[in-house]
Amino acid sequence: MSLVNPHGGGPLKPLLLQGDALKTEQARAKSLPQLKVSSREAGDIIMLGIGGFTPLDGFMTHNDWEGVCDGMKMSSGLFWPIPVTLSTDDEAIKAGSEIALADGQSGEILATMKVTEKYSIDKAHECMQVYKTADTEHPGVKMVMAQGKYNLAGPVKVLSTGGFKEKYGEQFMTPAETRALFEKMGWKRIAAFQTRNPMHRSHEYLAKIAIETMDGVLVHSLLGNLKPGDIPAEVRSEAIDVLVKNYFAPNTVIQAGYPLDMRYAGPREALLHALFRQNYGCSHLIVGRDHAGVGDYYGPFDAQHIFDEIPKGSLETVNMNIDWTFWCNKCGGMASQRTCPHTKDDRILLSGTKVRSMLSEGQDLPVEFSRPEVAKVLQKYYKSLSAEQNVKVELKGHSAA
Amino acid sequence: MSLVNPHGGGPLKPLLLQGDALKTEQARAKSLPQLKVSSREAGDIIMLGIGGFTPLDGFMTHNDWEGVCDGMKMSSGLFWPIPVTLSTDDEAIKAGSEIALADGQSGEILATMKVTEKYSIDKAHECMQVYKTADTEHPGVKMVMAQGKYNLAGPVKVLSTGGFKEKYGEQFMTPAETRALFEKMGWKRIAAFQTRNPMHRSHEYLAKIAIETMDGVLVHSLLGNLKPGDIPAEVRSEAIDVLVKNYFAPNTVIQAGYPLDMRYAGPREALLHALFRQNYGCSHLIVGRDHAGVGDYYGPFDAQHIFDEIPKGSLETVNMNIDWTFWCNKCGGMASQRTCPHTKDDRILLSGTKVRSMLSEGQDLPVEFSRPEVAKVLQKYYKSLSAEQNVKVELKGHSAA
Repeated sequence: MSLVNPHGGGPLKPLLLQGDALKTEQARAKSLPQLKVSSREAGDIIMLGIGGFTPLDGFMTHNDWEGVCDGMKMSSGLFWPIPVTLSTDDEAIKAGSEIALADGQSGEILATMKVTEKYSIDKAHECMQVYKTADTEHPGVKMVMAQGKYNLAGPVKVLSTGGFKEKYGEQFMTPAETRALFEKMGWKRIAAFQTRNPMHRSHEYLAKIAIETMDGVLVHSLLGNLKPGDIPAEVRSEAIDVLVKNYFAPNTVIQAGYPLDMRYAGPREALLHALFRQNYGCSHLIVGRDHAGVGDYYGPFDAQHIFDEIPKGSLETVNMNIDWTFWCNKCGGMASQRTCPHTKDDRILLSGTKVRSMLSEGQDLPVEFSRPEVAKVLQKYYKSLSAEQNVKVELKGHSAA
Repeated sequence: MSLVNPHGGGPLKPLLLQGDALKTEQARAKSLPQLKVSSREAGDIIMLGIGGFTPLDGFMTHNDWEGVCDGMKMSSGLFWPIPVTLSTDDEAIKAGSEIALADGQSGEILATMKVTEKYSIDKAHECMQVYKTADTEHPGVKMVMAQGKYNLAGPVKVLSTGGFKEKYGEQFMTPAETRALFEKMGWKRIAAFQTRNPMHRSHEYLAKIAIETMDGVLVHSLLGNLKPGDIPAEVRSEAIDVLVKNYFAPNTVIQAGYPLDMRYAGPREALLHALFRQNYGCSHLIVGRDHAGVGDYYGPFDAQHIFDEIPKGSLETVNMNIDWTFWCNKCGGMASQRTCPHTKDDRILLSGTKVRSMLSEGQDLPVEFSRPEVAKVLQKYYKSLSAEQNVKVELKGHSAA
């Protein structure tokens, strides 16, 4: 038994150039017309660069876009659940153009691209097929509707990982790196735990269920842009580190991150999450309640059910479904709706808003909800935030004076 | 997706005759020479009768015995981990004989058999291959060494389930019955939990880990003969019932039993446990520490490792490995050595002997070790035992007077 194969069955296909090829292309890129890409597109380019989107070699054609929207299948027959596309309003770019793709925020050139096709899409159709809604309140739909008039297809050569390695160091592991680490540790059965948040006991429980029956867990954090109010990646990482150090057995957890933005496509995104975790070498993806969902657009278990609906063999990485988890006083332990026969009154449940307000006020969280060591890291962060706000308020008062 | 196939890939093959065929064969059986069978052999006959040993059609030939001992393979190529054989010292029985097989304890005729082969075996070889020891202190080895001089091969027609249905009622389910129940409940992924004991919190935890990620658990109890000092099946069943009723979500657990005697063959028996659970329709067998072992004959995880050593495709039912489980004070929950980084001092561990002595003295068990409802059932049983012993002591005193 060995690790799952990269998606498509071939080797990993990282599109990031190395050594002299990189230097030559970087020099050439400076002379090319530049297209500023969105945050989502930048994440996709970096993911292509590190091999996370193996075996894609660039942005999708119209045929691929259509096949993916309508049947989760590229024209080659390859399973793919969500379009990976690049858009522009630029009339000057044509099929045959060579262009440089620059990060819309930092201006850094991330890649070069040979445009092989320029095409229009029915955005609402993509939204209905992929997001199951065309409501622009949906953040994923909003991103699609905000795209340029045209999509550009073609192979890319990636020139940079956009500062992730510099910012996150060892935590920013490529698929080749996680695979090498799994091999070194002798792991074969690995569950990926997708997170954008610190881990409380409910998340610890999910991870431990996986560890009870597998070799280990990859706690795999989103390192892309966050919404205001979210815990920054470095604080989240510190909180997860103290949890792992104090409450997990040695050599059962690896913490790493990946560069994508969330699309919030619920079921379809859960499939994408499994697909790229296959590239990272994980045999399983933990799929909880409302995985990758937002608002009320998806049923709480739609992201679990969709794995039963795709053709057999679409993915080697499989879903490990887990229900909503919590501490139950009558169970005297962590449980889920699958294992606890008791009622809400017996369960320790706190909303995200409540947790934030308790931590901001320096209150302790119940030990059944969060490990004290984790709560302490978060309290420190919220304290620094309010100190910052106080400084801002003081400065504001000052300048107004 | 549907239930796993019966072993061998064909339909279930219960050898129990029905209706007129049964009546005719019962009448004929009375006129046949009788062979008294051992308790282990009786269990095997009943298992053949209900289809638990599908696709066998009787006791094994010398070729099959040899193939199973040396390579876990019958001459047909079918995977089988432990010989299923019948023995005798009777010189009069020959190849070609028609005999009746009677329970050595009750005298009931359980089956008829057409003897196709009479052969001798190297018992020590069987023991070394199957039990990894020829030490007659090993209860499985002891059974083999106590067998008759000859083995008899041939197809059997089963006439009775030996009183199990009458004694255990609904709990004595056949493979066809558990499969029908699973289908009715819509279950596909089912873990079998093998037990000969009441379930304390450590066992509850094993079952719940399975339930978190599968459709349900079959708590599958051995109903064969027990060693003196063991909890009788009806008390065990009552204790498991109160546990399920109070601490499991509805429709996640089915309790049933099977008629075999333990062989204590450790790793090889774990494979047999998985094989017949496949016939019962279970996709997984929970394999804990020292599964089906006795004494120090096997490494604590040998029964888990052997599943990696058998040829791929030998069984559809797979192992779900779980380490030693317990309550840990520092974890503040149930855990195993895979998930708890703390030390023995933090864990609530009680030996079987200690548990029996506490229960016999009417002491409460720690709630972290056993559910109070379960402990109460066991206390009541031990109380009735000591009352019985008191009566015996009184009667003895009386008759001695």
